Amino acid sequence: MPAAFLDVELIKLGEEGHTYTRTHTHTYLRRAYKKSAGHSPSINVGVIFVPSALASNASLLARLHLGSALSTTAPLSLSLSLSLCFSSFSVVKGNRDNAGKSSHITLWRAVPHCAGWHGMVQWMVSAVSNAGGLGLLGAGSMMFDVFQHHVRRCKKATKKPFGVNLSLTHDMSRHIEFLIEEKVPIVFTSAGSPKLWTQKLQSHGIKVAHVVPNCKLALKCEAAGVDAVVAEGFEAGGHNEREEITTMTLIPQVRKVLAPEIPLIAAGGIASGEAMLAAMALGAEGVQVGTRFVVTQESSAAEEFKKRCTAAGEAETWLTLKQYRPTRLLNDYGKEARRLSESGATKEQLKAFCGEGRTKRGIFDGDLANGELEIGQIVSTCKDIPTAAEVVERMVKEFRARNEQLVKMKL
Amino acid sequence: MPAAFLDVELIKLGEEGHTYTRTHTHTYLRRAYKKSAGHSPSINVGVIFVPSALASNASLLARLHLGSALSTTAPLSLSLSLSLCFSSFSVVKGNRDNAGKSSHITLWRAVPHCAGWHGMVQWMVSAVSNAGGLGLLGAGSMMFDVFQHHVRRCKKATKKPFGVNLSLTHDMSRHIEFLIEEKVPIVFTSAGSPKLWTQKLQSHGIKVAHVVPNCKLALKCEAAGVDAVVAEGFEAGGHNEREEITTMTLIPQVRKVLAPEIPLIAAGGIASGEAMLAAMALGAEGVQVGTRFVVTQESSAAEEFKKRCTAAGEAETWLTLKQYRPTRLLNDYGKEARRLSESGATKEQLKAFCGEGRTKRGIFDGDLANGELEIGQIVSTCKDIPTAAEVVERMVKEFRARNEQLVKMKL
Repeated sequence: MPAAFLDVELIKLGEEGHTYTRTHTHTYLRRAYKKSAGHSPSINVGVIFVPSALASNASLLARLHLGSALSTTAPLSLSLSLSLCFSSFSVVKGNRDNAGKSSHITLWRAVPHCAGWHGMVQWMVSAVSNAGGLGLLGAGSMMFDVFQHHVRRCKKATKKPFGVNLSLTHDMSRHIEFLIEEKVPIVFTSAGSPKLWTQKLQSHGIKVAHVVPNCKLALKCEAAGVDAVVAEGFEAGGHNEREEITTMTLIPQVRKVLAPEIPLIAAGGIASGEAMLAAMALGAEGVQVGTRFVVTQESSAAEEFKKRCTAAGEAETWLTLKQYRPTRLLNDYGKEARRLSESGATKEQLKAFCGEGRTKRGIFDGDLANGELEIGQIVSTCKDIPTAAEVVERMVKEFRARNEQLVKMKL
Repeated sequence: MPAAFLDVELIKLGEEGHTYTRTHTHTYLRRAYKKSAGHSPSINVGVIFVPSALASNASLLARLHLGSALSTTAPLSLSLSLSLCFSSFSVVKGNRDNAGKSSHITLWRAVPHCAGWHGMVQWMVSAVSNAGGLGLLGAGSMMFDVFQHHVRRCKKATKKPFGVNLSLTHDMSRHIEFLIEEKVPIVFTSAGSPKLWTQKLQSHGIKVAHVVPNCKLALKCEAAGVDAVVAEGFEAGGHNEREEITTMTLIPQVRKVLAPEIPLIAAGGIASGEAMLAAMALGAEGVQVGTRFVVTQESSAAEEFKKRCTAAGEAETWLTLKQYRPTRLLNDYGKEARRLSESGATKEQLKAFCGEGRTKRGIFDGDLANGELEIGQIVSTCKDIPTAAEVVERMVKEFRARNEQLVKMKL
């Protein structure tokens, strides 16, 4: 089944007015997965709120201003009500070197993305208009034609601005050119040098944010002239740093070294409005939420995985596989990975143990025993499977309520 | 040199009006250490602020009310300005099984404690009276006679209430009886069952807080009827849990499972007023600060260690020695411990590697290459060596300033 065929099917399913249920999505996912043995997709779901810049309202506006579509109000309290929501789904990583199987790679790359993207369209239409937000398409290492398709669909599905997240582990030159042509207003880059594309994107009026795990890389972002930095703590799901710097200690440090005019977005361990407020207290101007959105109705993860997440205990994820590729995992497989990792296994041994397609098996096929379940430590607080819009509403409500309580606090 | 002798010396040094400099302290520490080969003291320095209960002002007051000495005001804003500061120094752990060397154990146990305690008296006199706080004496596994002495000295040195922290790894029955006799108003217990002493202490009007690393143990505290729970995250220095639950994810979870009338005190990664506020946003009613107070003028740690702390980079501490006794460490020794630990060393191998007296060598002797330097991840933000009072002032100022900023934030 060539990429073009699936693409047509997806366009059909994605048409306005077509009832595109989760059952449809999963039927498609499973069908495509059967053809995709040997590749590991990874999930990356995020939402960012920037309720207002704590120290640099003016500069945040200057650097992240996205036009009239954003809801900005001139409040009595002299702060600016600027809120952005980003959500990205299903960053799928394939084997680019395996040219002979490129159409298959495209197939399963396309499907979960589309499922996620479809969810995101819903999300953007409701949550974004409700909250004055901005959706972020997790494009990861999407093949170019699929990428084109999704960006165009996003543009069709919302009149509001949206962003794209690109992993720089692969050559993204065509993607970048396309984003410039399509005038996508904001691009998040990760897993590569912030120097690579920042200047080019900015020269076309595109805002650039880059994801970092420490101060050292945050300073590289600053040197590269990024518009915003995402600092991701040890708590975050999936791939992470061996350094283990937690959100609680990472955010104040990055905020301190980073020029005050660069907005800082906190990630890792944030699944509630209270945590969002905590991140602001620590010095962030915004937060990125992953795990909570994996466990939503619209998420393209398998129902089995979502249910497993809602049952997760307080200490059921670990950052493991450190000798190979440090990853935060849940489940029995994760336990075994940890045991192996801590018993001194080499990179090669861990690579062999992990094999191929483990993330797909876990996250999308719902094989909880043998799949790799990438999820953040905060998963143990995600006890239900609401819609993405419900999550946003809830977080905003929690944020406001706790902030009102803090106001009353005296020392 | 029997315990009694040293005790007399310490009493002399501790007399009112005696100029007891840091040089004196360290001379004494070193002299005593020479006689104490084979034992590892550990440092435990803390301050707790409870600016006001977010959700349970009334119950916090009801459960933690310490009499008229605490500064409580009835504010216009309907919140209560209740602030407590606890500081504890130098919890020293010895080998109780080694009965033949008990006097030596007492010696080096006594000295760092007294040094710490002396510092704490200074601290209490200035910082407590300035901030309306409460000092907490880290009694750990102090020998009974030393313990008696310190509690009495604390009572003499301040008219304000103070607390005591007891590690329950040893039999504390005599200490407990003494605390009851002396009417010490608050006791923090850790490293043992909260059931052991809570009821007895409470029956004598003493308030009890217990330290936990997860929700499971927090619920045990609730069942035991404690007055407050301290939840300590992965970031914290020294001994910790293998579970690696970070402050950011631990606090909201403990707050959720714990009965709302039980005050929650957050620990781990907190060295600033902003972090204190973040902990409140996450659901804590108070915070406990360790690392920041190790790196102060009054701290009994070696100057070399303090200086090393101020030079620590952002990713220089690790929770290691997991197969043996999980400990967060800094320095070259820590690196080697981590390498060994991750290469699959057994508990016995790690125990042999650690040997005896390593903490003492690092923290009190200042042997940075071979000593065990227990310190929290947030150490990389401690860039100076202020007085304890300066730290408190700074934190209060930061807390207020950031809270004022949060008030202006709208979503």
